[in-house]
Amino acid sequence: MPKGEKKSAAVWIFMGSESDHAIMSESAAVLDEFGVSYDLKLSSAHRSPKRTISLAEKSLRNGAKVIIAGAGAAAHLAGVIAAHTTLPVIGVPVDSSPLKGLDALLSTLQMPAGVPVATMAVGKAGARNAGILAIQILALNDSRLRAKLGRYKKRLARTVEEKEKALKQSQGKR
Amino acid sequence: MPKGEKKSAAVWIFMGSESDHAIMSESAAVLDEFGVSYDLKLSSAHRSPKRTISLAEKSLRNGAKVIIAGAGAAAHLAGVIAAHTTLPVIGVPVDSSPLKGLDALLSTLQMPAGVPVATMAVGKAGARNAGILAIQILALNDSRLRAKLGRYKKRLARTVEEKEKALKQSQGKR
Amino acid sequence: MPKGEKKSAAVWIFMGSESDHAIMSESAAVLDEFGVSYDLKLSSAHRSPKRTISLAEKSLRNGAKVIIAGAGAAAHLAGVIAAHTTLPVIGVPVDSSPLKGLDALLSTLQMPAGVPVATMAVGKAGARNAGILAIQILALNDSRLRAKLGRYKKRLARTVEEKEKALKQSQGKR
Amino acid sequence: MPKGEKKSAAVWIFMGSESDHAIMSESAAVLDEFGVSYDLKLSSAHRSPKRTISLAEKSLRNGAKVIIAGAGAAAHLAGVIAAHTTLPVIGVPVDSSPLKGLDALLSTLQMPAGVPVATMAVGKAGARNAGILAIQILALNDSRLRAKLGRYKKRLARTVEEKEKALKQSQGKR
Amino acid sequence: MPKGEKKSAAVWIFMGSESDHAIMSESAAVLDEFGVSYDLKLSSAHRSPKRTISLAEKSLRNGAKVIIAGAGAAAHLAGVIAAHTTLPVIGVPVDSSPLKGLDALLSTLQMPAGVPVATMAVGKAGARNAGILAIQILALNDSRLRAKLGRYKKRLARTVEEKEKALKQSQGKR
Amino acid sequence: MPKGEKKSAAVWIFMGSESDHAIMSESAAVLDEFGVSYDLKLSSAHRSPKRTISLAEKSLRNGAKVIIAGAGAAAHLAGVIAAHTTLPVIGVPVDSSPLKGLDALLSTLQMPAGVPVATMAVGKAGARNAGILAIQILALNDSRLRAKLGRYKKRLARTVEEKEKALKQSQGKR
Amino acid sequence: MPKGEKKSAAVWIFMGSESDHAIMSESAAVLDEFGVSYDLKLSSAHRSPKRTISLAEKSLRNGAKVIIAGAGAAAHLAGVIAAHTTLPVIGVPVDSSPLKGLDALLSTLQMPAGVPVATMAVGKAGARNAGILAIQILALNDSRLRAKLGRYKKRLARTVEEKEKALKQSQGKR
Amino acid sequence: MPKGEKKSAAVWIFMGSESDHAIMSESAAVLDEFGVSYDLKLSSAHRSPKRTISLAEKSLRNGAKVIIAGAGAAAHLAGVIAAHTTLPVIGVPVDSSPLKGLDALLSTLQMPAGVPVATMAVGKAGARNAGILAIQILALNDSRLRAKLGRYKKRLARTVEEKEKALKQSQGKR
Repeated sequence: MPKGEKKSAAVWIFMGSESDHAIMSESAAVLDEFGVSYDLKLSSAHRSPKRTISLAEKSLRNGAKVIIAGAGAAAHLAGVIAAHTTLPVIGVPVDSSPLKGLDALLSTLQMPAGVPVATMAVGKAGARNAGILAIQILALNDSRLRAKLGRYKKRLARTVEEKEKALKQSQGKR
Repeated sequence: MPKGEKKSAAVWIFMGSESDHAIMSESAAVLDEFGVSYDLKLSSAHRSPKRTISLAEKSLRNGAKVIIAGAGAAAHLAGVIAAHTTLPVIGVPVDSSPLKGLDALLSTLQMPAGVPVATMAVGKAGARNAGILAIQILALNDSRLRAKLGRYKKRLARTVEEKEKALKQSQGKR
Repeated sequence: MPKGEKKSAAVWIFMGSESDHAIMSESAAVLDEFGVSYDLKLSSAHRSPKRTISLAEKSLRNGAKVIIAGAGAAAHLAGVIAAHTTLPVIGVPVDSSPLKGLDALLSTLQMPAGVPVATMAVGKAGARNAGILAIQILALNDSRLRAKLGRYKKRLARTVEEKEKALKQSQGKR
Repeated sequence: MPKGEKKSAAVWIFMGSESDHAIMSESAAVLDEFGVSYDLKLSSAHRSPKRTISLAEKSLRNGAKVIIAGAGAAAHLAGVIAAHTTLPVIGVPVDSSPLKGLDALLSTLQMPAGVPVATMAVGKAGARNAGILAIQILALNDSRLRAKLGRYKKRLARTVEEKEKALKQSQGKR
Repeated sequence: MPKGEKKSAAVWIFMGSESDHAIMSESAAVLDEFGVSYDLKLSSAHRSPKRTISLAEKSLRNGAKVIIAGAGAAAHLAGVIAAHTTLPVIGVPVDSSPLKGLDALLSTLQMPAGVPVATMAVGKAGARNAGILAIQILALNDSRLRAKLGRYKKRLARTVEEKEKALKQSQGKR
Repeated sequence: MPKGEKKSAAVWIFMGSESDHAIMSESAAVLDEFGVSYDLKLSSAHRSPKRTISLAEKSLRNGAKVIIAGAGAAAHLAGVIAAHTTLPVIGVPVDSSPLKGLDALLSTLQMPAGVPVATMAVGKAGARNAGILAIQILALNDSRLRAKLGRYKKRLARTVEEKEKALKQSQGKR
Repeated sequence: MPKGEKKSAAVWIFMGSESDHAIMSESAAVLDEFGVSYDLKLSSAHRSPKRTISLAEKSLRNGAKVIIAGAGAAAHLAGVIAAHTTLPVIGVPVDSSPLKGLDALLSTLQMPAGVPVATMAVGKAGARNAGILAIQILALNDSRLRAKLGRYKKRLARTVEEKEKALKQSQGKR
Repeated sequence: MPKGEKKSAAVWIFMGSESDHAIMSESAAVLDEFGVSYDLKLSSAHRSPKRTISLAEKSLRNGAKVIIAGAGAAAHLAGVIAAHTTLPVIGVPVDSSPLKGLDALLSTLQMPAGVPVATMAVGKAGARNAGILAIQILALNDSRLRAKLGRYKKRLARTVEEKEKALKQSQGKR
């Protein structure tokens, strides 16, 4: 079992197909970095609907706080989960059809009034941000996480500056 | 209860919102024309998911042969039903968001391998065709319906010819 | 001749170009799995229109029950066939132009009222689902097929669960 | 019968639905202006396919030189006609679905190698240009038409200049 | 001052232009329904950037828990706020340009790794869902809100069922 | 002649059709506000190409500093002018076809390497910004304009704050 | 000089960039097959506008009958030529930007009323069809070409049938 | 430090990520060709917002005349800079997400009235044109640059003609 993963996890990460794992592991990675527990679940809205719904229904009472769901094509996974829980659900559209993720994006985002899905960018950036958003939500009641987020934000800025220096040096050498 | 509608109906017509009725009544109208029984159901994939699933699960044993489902935006209705039955499911994307039905179209159409939705054109033409397709499916084992379909196809052609005549006459008079 | 293919076949699979075969063989594969007979036909709506129409016209009296048609670009193949038969026609948009299948999708889907095409997802998932939908239609009057579909649906769910286990194990080992 | 319309006409103008007439009458109007004979035909690729094909097949031997075809949605009309004749076929996509003509545009334009359709802009500008293109084609062997086209091109430019003057005057007066 | 609005509010609702108010008032309405305090702020990412940033920077220490931001066109508002706070930021794309909200949707959603925006559907449904998502986040530490959300979810389902009854009755009367 | 318009004007505003005037008058209005001289020209890239080119060619030696060009559909106007001058050319896509300005946007923006067009947003916001950008360019050598721009930027921010106050007051009164 | 190319050619083939040659050589190839003379011209609407216009202006009096123009991105080439001649102009959108040819397609197609461009499909299929359309136009006054076109159409159909046979055989062997 | 780069540079080139450098170096290259000084800055609108804003705010008083900014996805960089300066800002959309640059394009282009961004084509052609546009702006008060631009424009045309010759020769040899 990888670092942050455990059964009564704070964040449940769903993916609709094993081919989505290369993308959704970005969510897991950032939760590991922040020391937040999570559980990876492979369950499809269309191919294993009963188990998906059963997991969604018991997520709240099993201690989950936030759900992340990544899927491609007619990406109903996040929406189906959101229909069966009152926990915040974060959706990650995966680019896995010839339409380059536009189908997954619109299927995840355009939810009807009453059942929100917090949709992220298509692909890896979105999967990573799903992890960050989950941490931002958990940090509302966790001052240690809040402090980590503050440091993370500073590190983001510092990393850009360091990369500029590296770029300038490599330019200067030419 | 309108003409063709009854409880142990051959075709179950779902719509996700009462605002879809103006579109989906086209499916009902064509089934009425062909004398095929149907039942209209208003049930949302996201707002009333349990009832939607329960209806989908019992459709086969309650005598339904074909399911039609119309919805807009992140239109998961047809896909969610298809996940819970082995009956043929026909999806009608409804244009009900600023994105002009492109969201409903892709959410209905781009189903993963294993769980098909027979997707129709966006809007009224699609809703009417959902009815025709249901009749084409039922006609495989109903020679009376098959004959009606043959006559319908001839009438389609004749109507175009009559409209040409009317157009030519109105042109000639100018 | 491959396993399921025979002359008085229940399903006729059309493709508009030999380059569509890599996609459309998915329809054939699933029909083979279910033991449903089919016939593969290569015929273009635009380059061999007379033969396409002639095949469409005689499909019903030659014993076909369902037609599947896959084509790319201005994909008129399914629509042209649907214009000449009252059998259910399933369309598969193929991604074969720089526009990534959006052209094939809209050309197949947006049929006028009176002449439906049951449109599937773009590409391989769609071709496989065309086969499943054909089986769902045939199963309405074939209890053996209906039972197979029920088992298939359970296997779909079980496969997802097995893949989750495999994923968890490979994660745990890292 | 309107001015330029006659039976052995040089240009045959097809439309797929009577609702396309408001658009396609622009093609007729410009042919009237240039004194080129035409015949309006209402015939659908999908609802009256046999008549459409029969007209296409006999167009050449009945004296037609150029065919114009306007249709909306899965606009196969021009392509189906082009499949059955070697005359130049000009396609006009009509905006008649929620997708704003993008479906008609791609269905008309994306023809496979071997069967061209000369596609015009969506809507009225395209219908008018279909008429002009027909005249440009006919003018290759008609010096009177060629001269008229030359004068038309000068008038186009002059009209823009006159409108500038009118605009400046209306501005100056404010 | 409307019902739920107060200065040390739990939810800050930003809009980039006064014309967005007709949309964003949906977020306020749902917060009022749940008795959650909010503050409406009109501030543009591009026209009043300093104030927008200053508000974002002080949101956390002023007691805000969740930020909602709605904007149209090149909708940078949610992203700019997210760049200056570690609070969860929910973005609502507003359809206010000829491109029907596609510009606002992509500008809000496609955030780079490290700076998430929880994006909702385009328009009113999205604005209402932004309110619900804020409540779902706040409910993680508020059992009263959690209970209300549970009742709300049941009411959503019940409302659909009541509307079905009304629809059936109105049908039956015809 | 309106306020800022004169013959040896600093900014030449082209439009391709008189129907573009309702949009392009926004460019003129902002130049009037800043006291920058301009000349309105109605000339089409396609219908009056010679005059368009002739105006472009003499713009530099006639004292023009910046050119603004607005057009719809296959909007070549800005690009054609840019091909014939080395002055900065600002393009405004106008929404005047069923495709909602996407055609004008791509036709104006996607210029090949060597011949830039500074493209603005579709419609009125873009036309107004074309005026502002022209002023920003002229201000590089005009300290009075630079000062005005500074004040304009402050006024933009102040106006947003005033509108917030008005909104809060109208809310409070309800 | 390749087979069909000569100075007083019937068809002038323009391309906007040498990178378009891989596509536009398809037009030349089909003209070679039909024995129609052509001249290849590399000239850009934006980078060498004067020569492009000069060639367009003298095309008619130098004996050209039909012009083909292929370009990518903001593909103004066909439209600029059409603005300066009354010959039929055929446009081929080339997929040469990240937007996959959608920019070239709309820039070529959406011409204003009065100046048509006969637009073909994006890429190689379109370039080949541009050659066929040119031949269809020339065949109106050339019975030898007309006969060749008739044979070509039959060969198109026969080739599809032969490919079906080959496909069936390769299937049978498996 | 590369040729044209220096601290009190006339043109400041921003990029939002080091992966944009392969594109944005085209802007630097053309400025080098024209002998215009520039400074490359790597700074993100979202990850290092404070530094981005601080640079934008001091650009004018540090001697910058024109700013170029390239970014991908929800490309806010140019817009954020434009919000904090009155200098002309040129935006280059970079294709760096599955959506092929459409997201970057709309995020850069669709700026609200009052805050223009001069948007270029997606990718390398756009980055090169950003450099040319900067030079066109600077040339308004630099006769030496103006003369260079005149020669550049002639060279563009000559290069096309030379490439035609090379193409014809390579054709002739075959």
